[in-house]
Amino acid sequence: MFPKNAWYVACMPQEIDEKPLGRRVCGEPIVFFRGPENQAVGLEDWCPHRGAPLSLGQVVEGKLVCGYHGLEMGCEGKVVAMPGQRVRGFPSVRSYPVIERYGFVWVWPGDAAKADPALLPHLAWAEDPAWAYGGGMYHVKCDYRLMIDNLMDLTHEKYVHATSIGQKELDEVVPQTVTEGDLVITKREMPGVKAPPFWATAMRGNGLDGEATVDRWQRCRFMPPSSVMIDVGVALAGQGGFDAPAPAKTSGIVVDLITPETETSIWYFWGLARNFRPEDKALTASIREAQGKVFLEDLEMLEAQQRNLSAQPERKLLSLNTDLGGVQARRIIERLVAQEQAS
Amino acid sequence: MFPKNAWYVACMPQEIDEKPLGRRVCGEPIVFFRGPENQAVGLEDWCPHRGAPLSLGQVVEGKLVCGYHGLEMGCEGKVVAMPGQRVRGFPSVRSYPVIERYGFVWVWPGDAAKADPALLPHLAWAEDPAWAYGGGMYHVKCDYRLMIDNLMDLTHEKYVHATSIGQKELDEVVPQTVTEGDLVITKREMPGVKAPPFWATAMRGNGLDGEATVDRWQRCRFMPPSSVMIDVGVALAGQGGFDAPAPAKTSGIVVDLITPETETSIWYFWGLARNFRPEDKALTASIREAQGKVFLEDLEMLEAQQRNLSAQPERKLLSLNTDLGGVQARRIIERLVAQEQAS
Amino acid sequence: MFPKNAWYVACMPQEIDEKPLGRRVCGEPIVFFRGPENQAVGLEDWCPHRGAPLSLGQVVEGKLVCGYHGLEMGCEGKVVAMPGQRVRGFPSVRSYPVIERYGFVWVWPGDAAKADPALLPHLAWAEDPAWAYGGGMYHVKCDYRLMIDNLMDLTHEKYVHATSIGQKELDEVVPQTVTEGDLVITKREMPGVKAPPFWATAMRGNGLDGEATVDRWQRCRFMPPSSVMIDVGVALAGQGGFDAPAPAKTSGIVVDLITPETETSIWYFWGLARNFRPEDKALTASIREAQGKVFLEDLEMLEAQQRNLSAQPERKLLSLNTDLGGVQARRIIERLVAQEQAS
Repeated sequence: MFPKNAWYVACMPQEIDEKPLGRRVCGEPIVFFRGPENQAVGLEDWCPHRGAPLSLGQVVEGKLVCGYHGLEMGCEGKVVAMPGQRVRGFPSVRSYPVIERYGFVWVWPGDAAKADPALLPHLAWAEDPAWAYGGGMYHVKCDYRLMIDNLMDLTHEKYVHATSIGQKELDEVVPQTVTEGDLVITKREMPGVKAPPFWATAMRGNGLDGEATVDRWQRCRFMPPSSVMIDVGVALAGQGGFDAPAPAKTSGIVVDLITPETETSIWYFWGLARNFRPEDKALTASIREAQGKVFLEDLEMLEAQQRNLSAQPERKLLSLNTDLGGVQARRIIERLVAQEQAS
Repeated sequence: MFPKNAWYVACMPQEIDEKPLGRRVCGEPIVFFRGPENQAVGLEDWCPHRGAPLSLGQVVEGKLVCGYHGLEMGCEGKVVAMPGQRVRGFPSVRSYPVIERYGFVWVWPGDAAKADPALLPHLAWAEDPAWAYGGGMYHVKCDYRLMIDNLMDLTHEKYVHATSIGQKELDEVVPQTVTEGDLVITKREMPGVKAPPFWATAMRGNGLDGEATVDRWQRCRFMPPSSVMIDVGVALAGQGGFDAPAPAKTSGIVVDLITPETETSIWYFWGLARNFRPEDKALTASIREAQGKVFLEDLEMLEAQQRNLSAQPERKLLSLNTDLGGVQARRIIERLVAQEQAS
Repeated sequence: MFPKNAWYVACMPQEIDEKPLGRRVCGEPIVFFRGPENQAVGLEDWCPHRGAPLSLGQVVEGKLVCGYHGLEMGCEGKVVAMPGQRVRGFPSVRSYPVIERYGFVWVWPGDAAKADPALLPHLAWAEDPAWAYGGGMYHVKCDYRLMIDNLMDLTHEKYVHATSIGQKELDEVVPQTVTEGDLVITKREMPGVKAPPFWATAMRGNGLDGEATVDRWQRCRFMPPSSVMIDVGVALAGQGGFDAPAPAKTSGIVVDLITPETETSIWYFWGLARNFRPEDKALTASIREAQGKVFLEDLEMLEAQQRNLSAQPERKLLSLNTDLGGVQARRIIERLVAQEQAS
């Protein structure tokens, strides 16, 4: 149950620099590689000759050469050559719209005629030299909507991430959720608190006192089909919080780009964009490592939750005020899927 | 196919001392933990909020706090609190009768109204300081009745355990089986034999000559739903065997408490209770280690047998005189299950 | 979909020298062992007592003693004894015709009445001291016909085995396929080429110049149910190729004996028979090691191809002129299976 007429992150650019990559997106087995102008390409991962996965092949001069018998596949899914063969009548394979932007390769697994680059989310930080980004990818065996729920209700940080970004004030404040068209925003403010370890370290990395009392904020923004961008940060107490002047705060955007593999598994692209000391690559690396550990803690919980739900699929869950972000996100997703099925 | 209105061993006490334990018993996913009076508790392993397993949570002041969003579950399966929430209308989860006794935590996976502590088996050795117990647990992928068959026909010791407790006389004597109500007893006497290695070592541990000629006995006692207690021992030849005076024999009770996980897998709690040198912890440890190795030999056979039977479920097996103990045990089980289904 | 009335390689002789071997052939679970005259025997891998696999037992004086309770099974599948039991009425298990010849143990998984030793393929090299053989076995998760396709179209060597037996001329020549009754032969000649690394090494092993220009040939011979023998070699250019005098060439027979385990997995017996320096055991070992590495490269491709085909079983494949050998082989197989089902 996912919209297929949408842009999803397929991979990071470097995953296809050396050789083709086979990856299933929204149930579609796709091979990603670089064409003659180095552009990212996505084709069905199937050689029309004998059904071998093209992803086991090699890219030669921008064509994908099947690793079994040498059929040469062009970037539009048409067979362009095969040694000793006339290929004009050979069947083509499906081609998927692909765009490389913002440091990701995006694919449109649905109706290619509807793929509009203007529908890509706008990730301003990715094109602004005042920002730096570091991140990674995890494979998680859960419905992508469980990950959206997770990210739209950060109350869980207190329990799942107790030693890094959790703190007791997280569930003392009920978050506020608003829906603006297809955008769902859930906000939580925690004024006058101590920064938890992850943020204390980040403050020190930014030249601030990690022990200072701070105002902490979280603004989770869901955009369909399945991205959650979270404005996060801490400012010295009383300086305006989210709106505090730059020298008084340490902030960033938690980037969560979630790509369904199957109905119950995802490729989870996570990271942090920050606008302090963007040139400091060692800081990027250390934040990335710390964030990677934090996000690993979600995996165990989400996969266990998925196993429980799969065993009792009919059982009802509770939707509390803290769950409102996830609930609204699911409504938007359901409407988009219904629209797709109607057309 | 198992009685659910019965006491089964859920775990050993130390398994829930540090943190909750998720374990499936008779198909029921259950979380075991210690409540406010340190008592063992069993609840459905499901958080009514979002379906996460409660077993990933923490016990705080005798309440089980969900590890995802902090819902607090009480010992009767009622939600007692959740930060920022009114929980009065929250659905409860199922509570399972649990008793801690004889060094085990027991659970009643069926109708709680019928759970009667008086139905627990009486394990006198567990409460008698003249006895010591050592044991362990194995997970085995077989129908629990295959393990009962195994334990009620010890002829297999000659073949499966040739280097430890097997000896050639094992199948020279046809065992005698009697059924007394719900109790099935299969006896075998092997008079005037050499003690096999396991028993020779035990005799030496008990100050006897391991090379002496002995009278050996085995009395397997099945009690529903799925325990088999086996009186085992060797006495110096001609001293009365099972009834020989204590200084002339080395004996004990092989303890087998079998808990179905699914139709084709079990939690197998095994051990040896002995009434010689009970204070000798090193002896307890060495017997436990030796027994653990012996019982591992059954695993390969039982799992392979299960795979064969699963592949040809309709195929008939033979029931010989040596199988009578298992056959009678299965009859009792079938009657109990039929009674449950009728009511 | 395989003929069952046919001889398949069950195992190599040494696999049953020490203890029984359980192996599934064409879906049939079979235990292979050596009977009283040391002859290879194949029986259903099922003890009629309690369904344990007989393959976990031991061979004692040519009888197979069940490892669970000591039932003694004779070579024809009749129970001959069991301690303390009268076995006359015991059910028998199925016996499979087995022949040991040419360095292999062969089994006939179908109708025993039709098992004719004369139907064994004639492997002359295996009985000729002028020849040496070295080989191994791989378990591969693919339909056996995908392996036949692989071996009847060696164009793939250029792509799958680029660093060993592949060379660019492989797909410059269209192979010729002829069918003679149940025999399919696909031939390819590559005159005036450089020997690829595997063959250059073999030439040096045979005292020839590995850098010399050669005429290379491949003659793939499929015989039902599923063997492919490939005459392969290189001769100094212009000396007659396949027909060149022995001192001017290095040649052998690639032996591929493919035994279906299930519909989508095989036991693949591979090797090389050669008629140069047959006494040189070090050469046999080094060729075997090199060939083993080459054939491992096929595994990844074939298993990936099988996964693709299993996901889209209805999708049509192309059958090109290079595929003609495999296509003809499949036709013969289909005819044999249809004949079996009709009778």
